[in-house]
Amino acid sequence: MTRTAKTNAVKLKRRKTRTASRPVKRAAKASNNLLRRRRGGESNEAMLCELKRRLQEISDLNFAGAVLSWDQATYMPPGGAAARGRQSALLSRLAHGKSTDPALGRLLEALELYGESMPYDSDDACLIRVARRDFEKAIRVPGEYVERASAHSSASYAAWIKARPANDFEAVRPYLERNVELSREYAGYFAPYRRVTDPMIDDYDAGMTTASVQELFAALRRELLPIVRAICDQPAADDACLRGTFAEGKQLDFNVAVAKRLGYDFERGRIDKTHHPFCSKFSDGDVRITTRVDEADIGQALFSTIHECGHAMYEQGVAAALAGTPLGSGASAGVHESQSRLWENVVARGRGFWQHFYPQLQAHFPDPFGNVPLEAFYRAINKVQRSVIRTDADEVTYNLHIMMRFDLELDLLEGRLAVRDLPEAWRARMASDLGVAPDDDRNGCLQDVHWFSAGIGGAFQGYTIGNILSAQFYAAAVKAHAEIPGDIAHGDFSTLHKWLAANIHRHGRKFEPNELVLRATGEPMTIGPYLRYLRGKYGELYRLPPLHE
Amino acid sequence: MTRTAKTNAVKLKRRKTRTASRPVKRAAKASNNLLRRRRGGESNEAMLCELKRRLQEISDLNFAGAVLSWDQATYMPPGGAAARGRQSALLSRLAHGKSTDPALGRLLEALELYGESMPYDSDDACLIRVARRDFEKAIRVPGEYVERASAHSSASYAAWIKARPANDFEAVRPYLERNVELSREYAGYFAPYRRVTDPMIDDYDAGMTTASVQELFAALRRELLPIVRAICDQPAADDACLRGTFAEGKQLDFNVAVAKRLGYDFERGRIDKTHHPFCSKFSDGDVRITTRVDEADIGQALFSTIHECGHAMYEQGVAAALAGTPLGSGASAGVHESQSRLWENVVARGRGFWQHFYPQLQAHFPDPFGNVPLEAFYRAINKVQRSVIRTDADEVTYNLHIMMRFDLELDLLEGRLAVRDLPEAWRARMASDLGVAPDDDRNGCLQDVHWFSAGIGGAFQGYTIGNILSAQFYAAAVKAHAEIPGDIAHGDFSTLHKWLAANIHRHGRKFEPNELVLRATGEPMTIGPYLRYLRGKYGELYRLPPLHE
Repeated sequence: MTRTAKTNAVKLKRRKTRTASRPVKRAAKASNNLLRRRRGGESNEAMLCELKRRLQEISDLNFAGAVLSWDQATYMPPGGAAARGRQSALLSRLAHGKSTDPALGRLLEALELYGESMPYDSDDACLIRVARRDFEKAIRVPGEYVERASAHSSASYAAWIKARPANDFEAVRPYLERNVELSREYAGYFAPYRRVTDPMIDDYDAGMTTASVQELFAALRRELLPIVRAICDQPAADDACLRGTFAEGKQLDFNVAVAKRLGYDFERGRIDKTHHPFCSKFSDGDVRITTRVDEADIGQALFSTIHECGHAMYEQGVAAALAGTPLGSGASAGVHESQSRLWENVVARGRGFWQHFYPQLQAHFPDPFGNVPLEAFYRAINKVQRSVIRTDADEVTYNLHIMMRFDLELDLLEGRLAVRDLPEAWRARMASDLGVAPDDDRNGCLQDVHWFSAGIGGAFQGYTIGNILSAQFYAAAVKAHAEIPGDIAHGDFSTLHKWLAANIHRHGRKFEPNELVLRATGEPMTIGPYLRYLRGKYGELYRLPPLHE
Repeated sequence: MTRTAKTNAVKLKRRKTRTASRPVKRAAKASNNLLRRRRGGESNEAMLCELKRRLQEISDLNFAGAVLSWDQATYMPPGGAAARGRQSALLSRLAHGKSTDPALGRLLEALELYGESMPYDSDDACLIRVARRDFEKAIRVPGEYVERASAHSSASYAAWIKARPANDFEAVRPYLERNVELSREYAGYFAPYRRVTDPMIDDYDAGMTTASVQELFAALRRELLPIVRAICDQPAADDACLRGTFAEGKQLDFNVAVAKRLGYDFERGRIDKTHHPFCSKFSDGDVRITTRVDEADIGQALFSTIHECGHAMYEQGVAAALAGTPLGSGASAGVHESQSRLWENVVARGRGFWQHFYPQLQAHFPDPFGNVPLEAFYRAINKVQRSVIRTDADEVTYNLHIMMRFDLELDLLEGRLAVRDLPEAWRARMASDLGVAPDDDRNGCLQDVHWFSAGIGGAFQGYTIGNILSAQFYAAAVKAHAEIPGDIAHGDFSTLHKWLAANIHRHGRKFEPNELVLRATGEPMTIGPYLRYLRGKYGELYRLPPLHE
């Protein structure tokens, strides 16, 4: 997932927050003069201008913080860590202070009717609406809590970084217990709620609830399990050709060539190496990605680069007019993930993509690919197998990893599962869901950073929502432009990219995810296209008997 | 010059600023209880703690801004420029706001007597004294001016970047004229002054005045001219071996090896490539340098790396207890430059240094150095010649470039020279001082960024002060440790480094430059050691007749 998405998602607003005094304000709407007098006679235009100035400052503080984080992950020498943590916290605190400034609230309130007087989907109407939601949500959480939780996150992350390679769950158990408490406390600021994870889910994927995610996952799971079973009954694909010795420089050269071809704009971006790949935005003119290179495994850098390109092309595609406002980034964690998954899986694990790129890959790495037929390579990069590590999972079983995490975090927060019992619960669930269980906690409940670095709850469902939407968006694009698959096979990604830019990217956060999906595809989020995609692709690859639809 | 030095130098305070109410306060000193009641009964310890908290925030905002600048110079894609300018300006504005917060002033006033009650050279006494001076100076300059001047700087710099390669002085003339006005306006905030450049000189080299610099330069010039003449009467050294083809990667490897050996700590630093080399500090644990690699000229990267290492080792050597306060950086532009010049010239253009490193250089670049004797190489890197470009000048003629700039900027600001006549005045002065004149303005008055990017006045004298002090400090170090030259010839720089750290680096900005020089060398700044150094080295190199002392 992109860091940008996470950061922005945290700021997404609960959609139902409304001020109580609606009728009074509706009446006031009749008199424009009255309205103008609200803030010392300032015109709506002047107030809107002042609103944008304030939001730009908040945005710039957050972007400055993002530069500090990017530097920390890419080039900062070890000695810089302590001060950097403090400097980042200062920028966050200043941004939070400005985000919850009562003067901002008064301005937003004074602009409410003006916003409603404009067309619903105009930039300014959306801005006033979304900024209001952001504000209402931000002021619920005390600054004191934000600092406390942030300090704990840093400590918890530092403990996890050591505990994971040492396979030492006990070392992080107290941090995780505290994290559970802090997450409950966070949810409490949004009480009343139906389920404790509702506020966090809404942070990342506005408009979704615990119940709606459960319903979605149950439906998907029902269809997915027979597909996984059918594939795993077949002999496993041979992916040995992906392992070997692939010089870092050559890998990076190839990755850059692919990224350029896909449409990632290097005038407004760049690629660096980090331990964990991510995408980071510093302005609409500077959206960077990182990748992880493994000289023994060609797939690592290649597919992470393409994945992060998907995130970055989304951020690069937001309309320039929305830059520097809360609308100037992706709509939600799930929609963001749909873009990275679409490029990584639907496109770059497709046969057409490699019809174009495989000869180039062979030229870069004649050993071994000079002797590997395209079809064998295509099967290798689409190997499906039950495995213990989420980030290494194929696109079919991946969702089972997510569903399990989603259920476990709900159990933790609702008190049905004690932190001390997590390792055992993890192993049991892996065995029952995926048929494999990790040998140790390092490859079990210590494998993901999420619960140790951010709060618990809300951060996982977006991955599967992303998978679902990647297929739904791609199907809609192909419906509008039947030539897309043919274009891809010729190395032309522009029709697809333009469709995504016009229907998703440019809107930024103007619309809530559900609304955006409806506008882009003509229907609400649905698992149909994703299942059709999996059945079509893997049915052919593994010569499966027809799978029911 | 290091960016750190410039930034910090701007914040250096006029030493004579004192509050008027001294007698009243002295009386109050008698009653500690009275003092404690000043800020709602807070203890001095609590107020000092609050002072440090505020200063840490200011420091962190400035350091965050430094990260943004470093990124802009190293890795930022072109598209990031516009937003980055705005983000940097925001951080500066926030830092300036906190630096001039009246609450900070009240705290400093309340702490004055407490500071005076402590030993003069204790960290806390120095902190209260220096922070007070910083504050008194900062509040003289309106925030509105700071923003206006900063915006003009950016525009002027952008114009210069284009005008210099185009040799188009007319394109930047209006910017330079405005810069002259802005610099006069800046000086006006510190009226009354004797000479208009006094406030700016004090910013960079606290304790110096226009008159004291003129006196210093006149004395140096008198002694320097016969040396230059005597050298230039001899056949020029042959430095052809420095030109060739030197692969970038190999150059960087060698530079890193040298930097490590000198004592630059890579756990708290790193080297990157930029167009103009600089040193930048983000915390006491993160002091980075950049270098410029020219594959056709081995000297470019090598000597800039060592120069910037000198700046960086200074910043890395400031006592940890001073970190995050206004004391946590170098004392002045001149003292900073003394460190870079000491390592670059006194050490790394010395014969002993190359007795150790030349075999390694030969191993890195057998072509051509396999066939170049050490002595020929030593002569090549110490070639003296009259030249038009300051940054390419040798260590002897370099000062003549500085003196000329110092005089010209005084003429500009005091109205004796109109901006439109600058190109001609530049050529005339070059011809009379250096005996060579540039063919065009690109290599004339457009060559330096200073007048186009910062205010005019104050930024040049530090280079020559640095040359003078580099020899004075080195002589004092050798006086204390006669083994230093021998150590250097064996590749051991630790005795010299430790002496510098103990006598200069660790003190940060605790003492004013004059005071620091006196403490470190036992006498005030003096040109004697520098002249002895030049006469000794170049007398031997060029077999000159004895030069009078």
